[in-house]
Amino acid sequence: MSIIPLNSFARDEWVAPSGDTSDLKSAVDGRVVARIGGRLDYAAMADHARNVGGPALRAATFHDRAHILKALAQYLNERREALYELSYDTGATKADSLIDIDGGIGTLFVFSSKGRRELPDDRLFVDGAVEQLSRSGGFIGQHVATPLRGVAVHINAFNFPVWGMLEKLAPTFLAGVPSIIKPASATAFLAEACFRMIVESGLLPEGSVQFIAGSTGDLLDRLGGQDVVSFTGSASTASMLRSNTNILANSVRFIAEQDSLNASILGPDAEPGSPEFDAFIREVYREITAKAGQKCTAIRRILVPADWHEATVDALSAKLETTVVGDPRLAETRMGALASLAQRTDVLEKVELLSSEARRVFGDVRSFEVHGADAQAGAFVPPVLFACDDPDGASRLHTVEAFGPVSTVMPYRDLDHALALANRGEGSLVASVFTHDAQVARQVVLGSGAFHGRLYFANRDTGKEATGHGSPLPHLVHGGPGRAGGGEEMGGIRGVMHYMQRTAVQGGPDIIAGVTGRYVAGASTAEEELHPFRLRFGELEPGRTLWAGPRPVTLEDIEHFAAFTGDNFYAHMDEEAAAANPFFPGRVAHGYLILSFAAGMFVDPAPGPVLANYGLDNLRFLKPVEPGASLKVRLTVKQKTRRNEEYGEVRWDVGVYDQEGEQVAAYELLTMNAM
Amino acid sequence: MSIIPLNSFARDEWVAPSGDTSDLKSAVDGRVVARIGGRLDYAAMADHARNVGGPALRAATFHDRAHILKALAQYLNERREALYELSYDTGATKADSLIDIDGGIGTLFVFSSKGRRELPDDRLFVDGAVEQLSRSGGFIGQHVATPLRGVAVHINAFNFPVWGMLEKLAPTFLAGVPSIIKPASATAFLAEACFRMIVESGLLPEGSVQFIAGSTGDLLDRLGGQDVVSFTGSASTASMLRSNTNILANSVRFIAEQDSLNASILGPDAEPGSPEFDAFIREVYREITAKAGQKCTAIRRILVPADWHEATVDALSAKLETTVVGDPRLAETRMGALASLAQRTDVLEKVELLSSEARRVFGDVRSFEVHGADAQAGAFVPPVLFACDDPDGASRLHTVEAFGPVSTVMPYRDLDHALALANRGEGSLVASVFTHDAQVARQVVLGSGAFHGRLYFANRDTGKEATGHGSPLPHLVHGGPGRAGGGEEMGGIRGVMHYMQRTAVQGGPDIIAGVTGRYVAGASTAEEELHPFRLRFGELEPGRTLWAGPRPVTLEDIEHFAAFTGDNFYAHMDEEAAAANPFFPGRVAHGYLILSFAAGMFVDPAPGPVLANYGLDNLRFLKPVEPGASLKVRLTVKQKTRRNEEYGEVRWDVGVYDQEGEQVAAYELLTMNAM
Repeated sequence: MSIIPLNSFARDEWVAPSGDTSDLKSAVDGRVVARIGGRLDYAAMADHARNVGGPALRAATFHDRAHILKALAQYLNERREALYELSYDTGATKADSLIDIDGGIGTLFVFSSKGRRELPDDRLFVDGAVEQLSRSGGFIGQHVATPLRGVAVHINAFNFPVWGMLEKLAPTFLAGVPSIIKPASATAFLAEACFRMIVESGLLPEGSVQFIAGSTGDLLDRLGGQDVVSFTGSASTASMLRSNTNILANSVRFIAEQDSLNASILGPDAEPGSPEFDAFIREVYREITAKAGQKCTAIRRILVPADWHEATVDALSAKLETTVVGDPRLAETRMGALASLAQRTDVLEKVELLSSEARRVFGDVRSFEVHGADAQAGAFVPPVLFACDDPDGASRLHTVEAFGPVSTVMPYRDLDHALALANRGEGSLVASVFTHDAQVARQVVLGSGAFHGRLYFANRDTGKEATGHGSPLPHLVHGGPGRAGGGEEMGGIRGVMHYMQRTAVQGGPDIIAGVTGRYVAGASTAEEELHPFRLRFGELEPGRTLWAGPRPVTLEDIEHFAAFTGDNFYAHMDEEAAAANPFFPGRVAHGYLILSFAAGMFVDPAPGPVLANYGLDNLRFLKPVEPGASLKVRLTVKQKTRRNEEYGEVRWDVGVYDQEGEQVAAYELLTMNAM
Repeated sequence: MSIIPLNSFARDEWVAPSGDTSDLKSAVDGRVVARIGGRLDYAAMADHARNVGGPALRAATFHDRAHILKALAQYLNERREALYELSYDTGATKADSLIDIDGGIGTLFVFSSKGRRELPDDRLFVDGAVEQLSRSGGFIGQHVATPLRGVAVHINAFNFPVWGMLEKLAPTFLAGVPSIIKPASATAFLAEACFRMIVESGLLPEGSVQFIAGSTGDLLDRLGGQDVVSFTGSASTASMLRSNTNILANSVRFIAEQDSLNASILGPDAEPGSPEFDAFIREVYREITAKAGQKCTAIRRILVPADWHEATVDALSAKLETTVVGDPRLAETRMGALASLAQRTDVLEKVELLSSEARRVFGDVRSFEVHGADAQAGAFVPPVLFACDDPDGASRLHTVEAFGPVSTVMPYRDLDHALALANRGEGSLVASVFTHDAQVARQVVLGSGAFHGRLYFANRDTGKEATGHGSPLPHLVHGGPGRAGGGEEMGGIRGVMHYMQRTAVQGGPDIIAGVTGRYVAGASTAEEELHPFRLRFGELEPGRTLWAGPRPVTLEDIEHFAAFTGDNFYAHMDEEAAAANPFFPGRVAHGYLILSFAAGMFVDPAPGPVLANYGLDNLRFLKPVEPGASLKVRLTVKQKTRRNEEYGEVRWDVGVYDQEGEQVAAYELLTMNAM
């Protein structure tokens, strides 16, 4: 295999390494696999992103961008094999590569799907409900979010070169913000190969992505208040970057995901022999060995009821005994190498530090077997398990992360003690709890939630469906307070908002309707002769309105409806009892009778563009309808939400009014309308 | 009037000033009004908050805390007069005090109300929808938020000593987090008086609030990842605080609201003589003179179509001519003094700087009349208006904030030019636009939203209901990107979340139901003989379920319902046309017929604890119901949301199923149940 010169991609051009380059070596056998280095015009790159990439992305809607993400995911999915092949030299087994490569591609799919379901087919996002700012509703507020006008700089960690790149790229792209991606050097050859595919796909607009193989030079000094830095890596690097004078002076958004001494807690109810105990042992074992423990979410602290300390150590040791460490290309290998010799040195130092506070119960870093590879040339370490009898007295165990297959078992007295120990990590990405008791779970969330970005509960019920302690999911936030960096990534649309600016918009209803493209209460409506149900999706405009009725409601109607449906609730049928109810003046019409009569008034029977009423939201009955009332209904196009080639979803604002013009019911109706 | 020794309130004890104290002087006449200074045991204060205040607050629910906020607002409201009296010595007129004091109390009321309406009567907040993480729904995710376990340090600005304190205190308290409040020294005598009332009210739990009259000493060095700093003040102070090594190393949350060169734009449609032009002149005038221009939201840059540059200068000058500057106690005074002589010096320096880029068209800082006060002893300045003919060539006008009654008129060529100029502030708290054209508004939001925390649109329709360019509202976010600090405050419940940790909780449905206190799909249900409608609010538990039915649906039912309601939509009435519809197999039952039959099955007719069905949410029709079907319905208590003394709101999860056991409709029903 030849040595790959890792190119940067700056201003839509590939730039070969130049000047003083460094060699990147295989984690497995130490041979040189790639060369990296060179300086770029970082200011010009940032400007290219802002002036070319940003405008191109902002011209598209969220749905447009989501469609591109899906096509990109499909494109990469067809080319995974080439990435797996390169991935072995990062020390990763095939199973590790599935997390990195398939996990990354899966993240693109989820963001694409969420973008189409949870974001509008528009260029701005409407955030939350209308806020009433005046009594009469003539002045209102609405939060919206628009894409930042700057560039997102993604500084990724070495452990997941593909997933790390894609989990940041997906929400940024969906937000409409261009990215400059800087992978960690050690595994940049895999990131570069994947990035090359992204460029070759031709799917992304010019200027929307750039790639730095090497140093970020003076890029951070070029950023301003519209830019974002999203960093994954060590706390020390994060602290260095965050303290950049320019970043501080310009309030540049800085998202950090850094160290984390994640805990896993065996519930007080999960005695040895229980399904929870077995699931716990399996999961802890998996977290120690997967990716050779180089996961920011890996379990570093294993908290167990004191009585079961020994049983846990024994069960884990028995599992660890079976671990084959060696060449990740070999099928028998469970655990490959660390990503580099430098990482091995670091892990061995940390193991030494931890030894001062805990006794080693499994694994010897000076003597272990390596299957099918040279133990010295590759960055191999064995799994190491510590046990600590006095976790309260320990300090390093709660603060020093050995970023490899290293973990410590600690006994706890009761659940409060377990939570106090978990919280001593001072902020983590995830903690897991194995319990079958929902009240234990609630106590954990109330007592420890503030310290963790994610809390993972598994038990006999969750079985194979459980997604794993160590797996950040695109649906859920990934990040944590304090030591974990204080940042948040992903979390579905929340992650998209990290690249957008929230703005409170205030104005009259017509202004807010114009800004958001949605009818709001009090905005102007347009009534025309043609029934709006005769209009196709493309022809409907927010504000288009139909008034229908009147329709009287008689006591006979109420009694008839009661007899027909079986709904003989006393408020409809018994004058005296109804009058005694705090909400009713006497007998009143059924809510569903009002809804049904409203539909009877506004429905246009013959086939036309309206294909179906498929739902209804936010129905509130505002005023009781007494026998003798007469109803009218107003139907107004509120919003067109999404569409495919054949039909689209229309949300209607409906008001039902009585003979005094007072509104008796409000709701939103959903229809599917033909294109 | 005697000199007030400003006390701190540390660990629930009042602490008098000691050591080297400083004198605080009246802004109006320079006499000494208060003394401030002394050191405190800051580490002990932080620990007191964490160990005493935090647990007390977390033991309460959001609703409990909201009730306390309301009582506090009422308590302060009755004691406003004493605060107005002190406020004059900050240079504030009565109108200015209304913004500060009444505005602050109003903020407490709004947070109380939002806390009861938008937060649960529980100790954790459920954030967003359930996330499906496995195909069968056996493993799900739910974001929740819990109070941070630390302390919030509020560092407030001198300009609004009461509002500034209360707008930070309200969301922090509602979140369940204790505060340490540090007011700006210059006006700390007013903040201390208000804080003293808060303590004297006896409403707040021990340890939940502390107060520092003087320096924060080493407090910031004592903070960790569970603490928050919320700062309002100058960019230079913010930058200094943010770069604190401890803050950076521990990822301490830092919310900053700092400088802002806010713009107001006269719309291209708002020619002189239009109602928009007049409203614009009134608002700009108000923003220049209110609080003597010492508002972080004040209009510093006045952007007008080039053709109307002169008309704007003339109209504003004419208004400014009427401004009476002087003793704020006097009724004739429109504009009082700046908060201190130091502020006056600063403003005069900035005026000098701006003079290099713009010509002064109104106001002379060396020669102006002061009504009823000594111009030298008090911190008076006159309103100053600049005009700049080349705003593109200017730099200081977009970057230097004279924090007083100083503003500059600038001409623009077209709307894009206006937005480019507005954006040159590089991040502001608010921009306003006077336009009657909703498409102008949309263009502004898309083109400039990313630079502003708030966009305020006013026109002929908004009239007196408009809340004012310069008024941050508790409902809306206050803050802005870049120069404005990159922070967000308030924004309703969003502001509460700044003091809570979001955590993604993963588990089986029973675990998630246990954690959140809400039934979720797939969680265990409990069926018992007694109809759940026979249970009072207090007796109902999430998961309690009733199954009812079956009820057949015949073609006669459908035709009968159509005739009765008037809903003769072809999908119900015309076999051939229905079958041609992409969603239906042939004629199907009306959606409202399904709802009505479901109610007929589950309703329990006789009077009982269920008082009313007052609404319905998230109705989706999942499968068409054909004639000949037979329906059953499941009614499950999902959640108890809120209550008063007599009744509470219950949300029910309802499923309607056909004879094959497939779900045909899903919705949530809302009832009011007696206590």
